[in-house]
Amino acid sequence: MSATVWNFNPGPAALPRPVLERVREELLDFEGTGLSILETSHRSPEYRRVHQGAIEGLRKLLEIPPDYEVLLLGGGATLQFALVALNLLEPGHPGEYLITGRWSAKALQEAQKALPLLGPGHAVRATWSSEETNYDRVPRPEELVVSPEASYLHYTSNNTIAGTQFPYVPETPEGVLLVCDASSDLASRPLDVKRFGLVYAGAQKNLGPAGVTVAIASPQALERSRARGLPSLLSYRAVAEKDSLLNTPPVFAIYVLKLVVEHYLAEGGLPALAERNERKARLLYETLDASRGFYRGCSRPESRSRMNVTFRLPSEELERRFLEEARSAGLLGLKGHRSVGGLRASLYNAVPFEAVRALVDFMREFQRRHG
Amino acid sequence: MSATVWNFNPGPAALPRPVLERVREELLDFEGTGLSILETSHRSPEYRRVHQGAIEGLRKLLEIPPDYEVLLLGGGATLQFALVALNLLEPGHPGEYLITGRWSAKALQEAQKALPLLGPGHAVRATWSSEETNYDRVPRPEELVVSPEASYLHYTSNNTIAGTQFPYVPETPEGVLLVCDASSDLASRPLDVKRFGLVYAGAQKNLGPAGVTVAIASPQALERSRARGLPSLLSYRAVAEKDSLLNTPPVFAIYVLKLVVEHYLAEGGLPALAERNERKARLLYETLDASRGFYRGCSRPESRSRMNVTFRLPSEELERRFLEEARSAGLLGLKGHRSVGGLRASLYNAVPFEAVRALVDFMREFQRRHG
Repeated sequence: MSATVWNFNPGPAALPRPVLERVREELLDFEGTGLSILETSHRSPEYRRVHQGAIEGLRKLLEIPPDYEVLLLGGGATLQFALVALNLLEPGHPGEYLITGRWSAKALQEAQKALPLLGPGHAVRATWSSEETNYDRVPRPEELVVSPEASYLHYTSNNTIAGTQFPYVPETPEGVLLVCDASSDLASRPLDVKRFGLVYAGAQKNLGPAGVTVAIASPQALERSRARGLPSLLSYRAVAEKDSLLNTPPVFAIYVLKLVVEHYLAEGGLPALAERNERKARLLYETLDASRGFYRGCSRPESRSRMNVTFRLPSEELERRFLEEARSAGLLGLKGHRSVGGLRASLYNAVPFEAVRALVDFMREFQRRHG
Repeated sequence: MSATVWNFNPGPAALPRPVLERVREELLDFEGTGLSILETSHRSPEYRRVHQGAIEGLRKLLEIPPDYEVLLLGGGATLQFALVALNLLEPGHPGEYLITGRWSAKALQEAQKALPLLGPGHAVRATWSSEETNYDRVPRPEELVVSPEASYLHYTSNNTIAGTQFPYVPETPEGVLLVCDASSDLASRPLDVKRFGLVYAGAQKNLGPAGVTVAIASPQALERSRARGLPSLLSYRAVAEKDSLLNTPPVFAIYVLKLVVEHYLAEGGLPALAERNERKARLLYETLDASRGFYRGCSRPESRSRMNVTFRLPSEELERRFLEEARSAGLLGLKGHRSVGGLRASLYNAVPFEAVRALVDFMREFQRRHG
């Protein structure tokens, strides 16, 4: 293994090194208590400060309006796929879905599985899909038709497998909640939170380790959720009312999330992160485009993701060799999703510019030898 | 703060020091990959070994029959309260609950909240309760009447707030699944798993950090779960079919769980843990009983918990002083649950005998000065 390694994992993904060092530093003695954060009660004043710090940090980093609630949940985005329908669907008002990749298709499927629990009159449907072209793009704004009768419009802002991303926020008619699975780009660029009914994201791409999911709920979403009888941990309202301390939360994951958020705030917040993420992606796409077809991007230029850059080589044999040699050069996590193959470099917040520099140097050299 | 501290936290609770040291040791470089386990993909071979290791370790430690499935879930026991009803309740066959404390009452409440999702004919009911005597005991075997029509019998094997514990496993009629919330005593003593339909436990008492829940499901429970259409993460069957890798799992919590389980296996497994837990509890109860009423145990002797020893002092003023002085002496986490007050020492697996030794020395000295 090379001395320096660069982590292009698709999530769980790179974390800022100073955060990992801090975690290591205080792992056996948290704030002079003599106890590890891993053995600290979630009702202790020490953990309370961590919990509130994580929520306040997210509010600041993401500029969340004061009337929105920040929820810290378990179960990942897959659980949210069901909770969106369970909490927000109203009878006679279908949930509409933009299908831009495997995860948005899954969001629709899981909502469908929730329908028998909700009873007659509840429905969900796809209103746009790029499945026929292998999810190579997201819709243009003028292609979107949202029914004014819809309960909500659900979309996936960044598609990790195909490597596409919405460059805009969709418009919805009055009363139709905009719901976004932002698992792979929340906190990677500024977001106008007040346009959303609900935004959710597993932390393990841009915000922290696996094990905690952030949901940002508008007053309208919480109001709808209140109207339903649901088991507590399935109800946005019930979780919000207890400040996400309805039961033992995933203490350690929230602790690391807090440190990551504070680290990004100190680095300049979303504007600084967005600028760096843009530079990283630009360098990599320029390298693809300058390769005269040796490296072929999988997504259409107007839909290209700043987070996950997907590309192919002239043959699967060359792709295998690329992965092997990259690994030897300390460039890790570049394999495409098992459902599509090819290559993928995930460029989340904690991936430094130098990592992309090292990757494109390697790519040019690889092309020189094998092109 | 005293040089040595002892952790009597009710959960999240003490973890074995060698495990914490190992976590610290490899936090920045997991198995020579150059990456932290916190930034390792859940689809990587490294994490796969951790995941399988955790499951295999639990199978070995708890002697789980091969036809049972071990599930690793998020959401804590509170989510299980709902999942039990969603997965296992059949129309016309009520779920029956033994109410031996606040958590079993909560299990019933959350199941009630799940009923509207299940439709007509589904019901749950309490069939025994010690609420009137402040949950000071669990039922005697001869007090239990379980309907042969029940879907399942649910009970809480150890009650952390009241400090009671079942000294036996309840009998159920053929076809009635025995369901146990063993959050606070799983892995603290041998358990005859094959008598159960389902056993579940948040890891944060005896098995690891907060953020992962272990569920052990019988073939009968999985069969019932299959019969229902449920969102994937709410279905025991769907999670079992994907080996608890249906989506990104709580990687770090499972990693620590694996290390804890391996540590206990190396220490001699459940027989050794049970023997030590028994010695710890005996020493503390003997101290209460020898105090001529200065320390009064809250639970009846025949229902006393080996995990959570609850007691009172002659006045709340003395209790406050006890807590303060104990804290100064490095004895942490002794405050009773906020709903009942008083004092509580939690003696989970990772609390060493010396900790209890230090506690009883302190208690005798405190009584000498204030008794």
